[in-house]
Amino acid sequence: MTLIPVSHQDLLTRPLFAHLATIRPDGTPQANPMWFAWDGSHLRFTNTTTRRKYRNVTANPDVAVSINDPGQPYRYLEIRGRVIRIDPDPDAVFFGELADRYQLAMDGPPGDAADRVIFLVEPNAVSFQ
Amino acid sequence: MTLIPVSHQDLLTRPLFAHLATIRPDGTPQANPMWFAWDGSHLRFTNTTTRRKYRNVTANPDVAVSINDPGQPYRYLEIRGRVIRIDPDPDAVFFGELADRYQLAMDGPPGDAADRVIFLVEPNAVSFQ
Repeated sequence: MTLIPVSHQDLLTRPLFAHLATIRPDGTPQANPMWFAWDGSHLRFTNTTTRRKYRNVTANPDVAVSINDPGQPYRYLEIRGRVIRIDPDPDAVFFGELADRYQLAMDGPPGDAADRVIFLVEPNAVSFQ
Repeated sequence: MTLIPVSHQDLLTRPLFAHLATIRPDGTPQANPMWFAWDGSHLRFTNTTTRRKYRNVTANPDVAVSINDPGQPYRYLEIRGRVIRIDPDPDAVFFGELADRYQLAMDGPPGDAADRVIFLVEPNAVSFQ
């Protein structure tokens, strides 16, 4: 079972960019385009422990994601949810899966592999059009 | 003078969609694709007094905006800032300007013209790639 309407599930299965909103320690929002993967129930993002977004979500796990359809930009999906787990990805295996999904040619793992982590996001509300 | 790097100003002058992050009354983030206009120093958005986003920014004016280049999706611009003014737009004049900018054919003003407002956003920080 998922909160995501069937009509908008393609926005999660296609390799689109998700604009991820996080909350900074001062309480103000931050927004950045991100790769993501969807497994039918959770979103996953790659990040590193040295990034601002990592500091944001470790202090405040609430996030929101906005994705629109490049071909029909008024079709969009917003997911609000929470980072329920952060897993290490020291060999950048998940990063590599995303690089494949987004067809980015990589010559071996990224230089920051040792710092790579995976944000696991559980949706708790959606809006869409 | 502007915070926006010259290299990324095209992301503001082209009719792209901005993903606007706002903070909900419970402190969690919200993110939605939006039309916008840029006048060289401020961003403007159309909204209505009946929308959740209006309630969010009247309670907490801090916002962030993420825009990427559909043709080169790794080129992006994030603007963090504050809604410094909300002006009424009861004849939907600004809405009409945005409809023109985004080439949306309109047959007269929208049905919610009476509730239309303009968010004026002053940037205070940027990130980009």
